[in-house]
Amino acid sequence: MSNIRHALSVKREDDFAAWYQAVISEADLAEDSGVRGCMVIKPWGYGIWERIQRLMDDRIKAAGVQNCYFPIFIPLKNFEREAQHVEGFAKEMAVVTHHRLISDGKGGLVPDPEAKLEEPLVVRPTSETIIGDAMARWVQSWRDLPLLTNQWANVVRWEMRTRMFLRTSEFLWQEGHTAHENREQAQEETMRALEMYRACVEEDLALPVITGEKPENERFPGAVETWSIEAMMQDGKALQAGTSHYLGTNFAQAAGIKYQDREGTEQLCHTTSWGTSTRMIGGVIMTHGDDDGLRVPPRIAPHQVVILPMLRDKPEDEALLAYCEEVCAGLAKQWSMGEPLRVLLDKRPGKAAGKRWDWVRKGAPLIVEVGSRDMEGGKVALIRRSDLWNLENGKTNFDFTDRDAFIVEAPAMLEQIQQDMFEEARERRDANIKRGVTSMEEVAAFYSAETKYPGWLEVQWSKPTGDALEKVVETLKAHKLTIRNVPMNAEAVDGTCIFTGEPAVERILIAKAY
Amino acid sequence: MSNIRHALSVKREDDFAAWYQAVISEADLAEDSGVRGCMVIKPWGYGIWERIQRLMDDRIKAAGVQNCYFPIFIPLKNFEREAQHVEGFAKEMAVVTHHRLISDGKGGLVPDPEAKLEEPLVVRPTSETIIGDAMARWVQSWRDLPLLTNQWANVVRWEMRTRMFLRTSEFLWQEGHTAHENREQAQEETMRALEMYRACVEEDLALPVITGEKPENERFPGAVETWSIEAMMQDGKALQAGTSHYLGTNFAQAAGIKYQDREGTEQLCHTTSWGTSTRMIGGVIMTHGDDDGLRVPPRIAPHQVVILPMLRDKPEDEALLAYCEEVCAGLAKQWSMGEPLRVLLDKRPGKAAGKRWDWVRKGAPLIVEVGSRDMEGGKVALIRRSDLWNLENGKTNFDFTDRDAFIVEAPAMLEQIQQDMFEEARERRDANIKRGVTSMEEVAAFYSAETKYPGWLEVQWSKPTGDALEKVVETLKAHKLTIRNVPMNAEAVDGTCIFTGEPAVERILIAKAY
Repeated sequence: MSNIRHALSVKREDDFAAWYQAVISEADLAEDSGVRGCMVIKPWGYGIWERIQRLMDDRIKAAGVQNCYFPIFIPLKNFEREAQHVEGFAKEMAVVTHHRLISDGKGGLVPDPEAKLEEPLVVRPTSETIIGDAMARWVQSWRDLPLLTNQWANVVRWEMRTRMFLRTSEFLWQEGHTAHENREQAQEETMRALEMYRACVEEDLALPVITGEKPENERFPGAVETWSIEAMMQDGKALQAGTSHYLGTNFAQAAGIKYQDREGTEQLCHTTSWGTSTRMIGGVIMTHGDDDGLRVPPRIAPHQVVILPMLRDKPEDEALLAYCEEVCAGLAKQWSMGEPLRVLLDKRPGKAAGKRWDWVRKGAPLIVEVGSRDMEGGKVALIRRSDLWNLENGKTNFDFTDRDAFIVEAPAMLEQIQQDMFEEARERRDANIKRGVTSMEEVAAFYSAETKYPGWLEVQWSKPTGDALEKVVETLKAHKLTIRNVPMNAEAVDGTCIFTGEPAVERILIAKAY
Repeated sequence: MSNIRHALSVKREDDFAAWYQAVISEADLAEDSGVRGCMVIKPWGYGIWERIQRLMDDRIKAAGVQNCYFPIFIPLKNFEREAQHVEGFAKEMAVVTHHRLISDGKGGLVPDPEAKLEEPLVVRPTSETIIGDAMARWVQSWRDLPLLTNQWANVVRWEMRTRMFLRTSEFLWQEGHTAHENREQAQEETMRALEMYRACVEEDLALPVITGEKPENERFPGAVETWSIEAMMQDGKALQAGTSHYLGTNFAQAAGIKYQDREGTEQLCHTTSWGTSTRMIGGVIMTHGDDDGLRVPPRIAPHQVVILPMLRDKPEDEALLAYCEEVCAGLAKQWSMGEPLRVLLDKRPGKAAGKRWDWVRKGAPLIVEVGSRDMEGGKVALIRRSDLWNLENGKTNFDFTDRDAFIVEAPAMLEQIQQDMFEEARERRDANIKRGVTSMEEVAAFYSAETKYPGWLEVQWSKPTGDALEKVVETLKAHKLTIRNVPMNAEAVDGTCIFTGEPAVERILIAKAY
């Protein structure tokens, strides 16, 4: 196996962080913009985002949630109303204070002191407080409930340390906001959104996740309950890939979201919010990438099959191109996983081998090379990105296959690849969650062990609150660890809390995290 | 006809501006957000935007343009580089100066003086200057050209007087940005985008437009040429519905977008940019709305057919709902104008007549009411929103039609409605462009005449520049008139300029405008 050349200069096992940056760069997903903490999302990265958007949006609409658009600017007074919320966000927001620039007299520009806003505006870090205003206008009676809204938008959080896709000052996301008559209905919606995220992220992005409730200290500022989906990256760290919050009546109280109930009594609404973002793309990279670049799960691949004619700048090219056009047209008529197959015929000039490596690095699921000999035999040379190497001879795994058979079989191949990618990730994840650790000493040992990428621990605890919880959080923090969530489907407890020694009440996941 | 009741309290002929606001409110398209100059786009309005986005995006992608995403914040230095550009925009931009809020000690929040940005950031009013930076990184050789990018984004221009959809401080748009080897190729792209806009706006939005070049004084700041599509509203005013700019080497020079040509010589790129926005929805309202509310062209209607069961809160409702579900399922299998038909079964509680008027005001193209008698006869009661009233008896125009026949005919009906709406608007537009006016006195008389909504004038001019043009612009401005564009397909000139008396060189359109 040692003779396998890999397409990236950095391997996962040598430097995972550098490998991550290399994939982003080599797969041409995104780049630093030069504007503090903001990235430029390039066509292949944005194409993946468009696919995720389409699939998530279909699920959102299927649940009866309606898309709207709310202002990017939020007045300060909206933040002042919800104390916990501002405490959580006030430290990292972009503040607009002027609405005009003037010349500084030296060829530069400065904010015009005459155009200072009476009240500064905040660039939304999240929209509970502005959507709350709209909900207060829209809801009068129980007949107006549930109110189910969502928006696709950019948001800004002034992050000190940024990393592309995972933590950027500006990012793209969807944020669902709903209002309900009572706690039960709002909690039901919180769980519906969580399950929708699980389904989309597992089925479409092929990222296995663990759903569960966040501990008190990890709650969204102002929330009563925060639930998350947690995915394991190949370095064993956790990535929170989506969150769903039951907000109680906190935001309804702050914004005045009230309704007349069936008896004519005025009541506060119970609200929820839930979000997923471009961060998910970071999860896709760190779950499915390999030492040759990215592997994109077929459902979210902008192009599922890329056809590369081996052009030679000769008259014969014409026949070869015509043959490739036929393959392309044949594939485009096929459907896979409920959608028309997405095929690209890459006619760019340049050698097929060079172009092949472009698509290997980008992670197109199926790459098809066609030379004149293939054409004569009615064949194509197929590469499955997930099975790139012949491990025996270290060469690229070409599958010389009949053209017409390939056209018919491609949809099932893609479906299989989708499933296999999920299973591969799930097996790795499951193999890297350790149970049975019963003391903080063992935790510390586990994470200081020789194992480079140790994975997660599932431990039992007594669910301490307040200062006692703070102490646990600090202890874990000393080892760079956090509590990810309380898994929904964990086994029953049968022992004592590893932190307090008190009887355990539930299981929690502990991990290093992004 | 006088006994026709209309659904809005204001008629177009009485107060067009108030009528416009009434449609937006009654069709539940958008509302004021309470944040200066920003609107909330509500589900029906946003649904129309999603349809426009989808159709425009398909056209953009079909042209080989790739979607990306660029930062919302632009450093001041980017604006300082292009003098004309900043001159055009600097007066109306939102400026971020701080990245943190702190308590003011009185329960309020203020920007933290310790968190002042070293260099303020501008919230993008348009992205030439930031995308230029990326292009400078991405383009090295002629092989990298043409570079064809687009982004869907929000932008902010600090407008003093705002009007929903037409002029808001924040709005949603797409902005295409391309780089080319030379003037010819960049101009070709400028015209391709213009033609794409014409086709989308005419074919999808059913808004007839006149394509042409803007006069010098109306150019985009920093552009060499600006081309526009101009639509006529029902009050005779013009709406610029999209623009396409040839930017020469101005922005390439400012950002350093250079390439090595085939001979190895370094050259500046020629760039273009082109944009359309949520403003188009304002055009749809003012072109297709009537005294009963909005009429949405079928191609951009979120729901093309709305089915209203006449529920009576009785056990028979079940059979009626089942019947309606069948109609709905039958329609959903049909395709119209290249897409699956979009049907909604409106099961909300409430009388069908009340719900009917909701959908009349929203402008769903086909509204289908079904009562138990219709069900027994295998029929439906169809209302065409474009043909709502029986002008002879002043009653609603119901078409009691066979259910199965309707399912089959619905796609063709929608196509016909789409065509009819375009033709109706085109005839009105054509009837309201006056030609043959030969002096500024006649222009003044035309616009001060009794005619409430006078329309446009097509006149001949000598294409003055500089001060002479400025004088023309001022003269027109005194009558609240502007030059819209130089129509591409106008007849040849054969006389003198109505402003200067010199030989005419081209025809221009004059109008009041939004």
